[in-house]
Amino acid sequence: MRNDDRRERLRTALIDAAEATIAADGLSALKARELARDVGCALGAIYTVFPDLDALILAVNLRTLTLFEQAITAVRIAPEPAGAATPAERDAAVEALVRLAVAYLDFAAAHATRWRALFQHRTEALPDWYLVEQVRLFRYIEAPLRVLRPDLGEPDRALLARSLFSATHGLVSLGLDEKLMVLSEPVLRGQIEIVVGALGRGLAGE
Amino acid sequence: MRNDDRRERLRTALIDAAEATIAADGLSALKARELARDVGCALGAIYTVFPDLDALILAVNLRTLTLFEQAITAVRIAPEPAGAATPAERDAAVEALVRLAVAYLDFAAAHATRWRALFQHRTEALPDWYLVEQVRLFRYIEAPLRVLRPDLGEPDRALLARSLFSATHGLVSLGLDEKLMVLSEPVLRGQIEIVVGALGRGLAGE
Repeated sequence: MRNDDRRERLRTALIDAAEATIAADGLSALKARELARDVGCALGAIYTVFPDLDALILAVNLRTLTLFEQAITAVRIAPEPAGAATPAERDAAVEALVRLAVAYLDFAAAHATRWRALFQHRTEALPDWYLVEQVRLFRYIEAPLRVLRPDLGEPDRALLARSLFSATHGLVSLGLDEKLMVLSEPVLRGQIEIVVGALGRGLAGE
Repeated sequence: MRNDDRRERLRTALIDAAEATIAADGLSALKARELARDVGCALGAIYTVFPDLDALILAVNLRTLTLFEQAITAVRIAPEPAGAATPAERDAAVEALVRLAVAYLDFAAAHATRWRALFQHRTEALPDWYLVEQVRLFRYIEAPLRVLRPDLGEPDRALLARSLFSATHGLVSLGLDEKLMVLSEPVLRGQIEIVVGALGRGLAGE
């Protein structure tokens, strides 16, 4: 039992240290040797609690997803209408989609290194438990979609939620990134409001 | 003069070899030593025609942009209406946006390694001539936007065209990539049609 406690403490200490490194300097700064030094363990001890560094990075990314979930639970989303949605209820659902997208921009801008690590991290295949956590976050997008597209079944709505996330991610990542000309945050916010707003209204009009 | 010819031939041979390597095995397979061997020149000769490997990669990426432009010029886009657009003309403009987005998916799927190299490539700042080439491609998106949003001035339309590209890029890259669950190409195509179609209709309805 005490052995399990020690393992758990080491695991937590390693995640803490890796999280701090990624937050400060990005994923590329993460080195096993420096982690071991930060935590005060032998290099090999890392691999007694994580199969490899990828698994440790996934544990950090899971914390990032949780942090993001805290940010979006703060987004006020109107309750779902009981029957057919009124125009005002549809407007509120479009507004909810816009707010979620803006919350994603805000999160990416505020936690740039952590956010980038979610996508830089390359592993053979993401484990199921991690994919489940990602998919769980799409539920926040599904709620307004239920109002805008009550005709869609559960799988189609889940797929569409993922696509709305992907489109928003494209706006945010190419907006903040240096691949095209970088946009200022207020300009990017304005574009997200225009594009996601139009998208929501277009979906509602079908 | 003959010296200039020789430089030009070496330059072209290096771009050809780099393009073939990127197309076959991706950007990470590109190594200066192997390029020099492929082309039959000394390692140092590369740097007599390119300041660094980044510049050579940009020259390959420029070819990829040109290849993509050939693909999208094949997308039939209805001529712009002379006066205020009729509903049918607006529908045709929405359809053009969808076709351009699907053409982007098709290109990314058909030329996956070349396409990825456009975004993997990291340099301090992209040179102006390259940014101009990127921006030029957004013109294809601006044409239908002129029909859907005749109220927008030139800079706002250009910005919106870039944003529509970014949203489409997000759909394609997260759809083909392993960061979320990979979507099959027909499913991804269907999502692009739904999302970009809704976006176009939402923009037209303003």
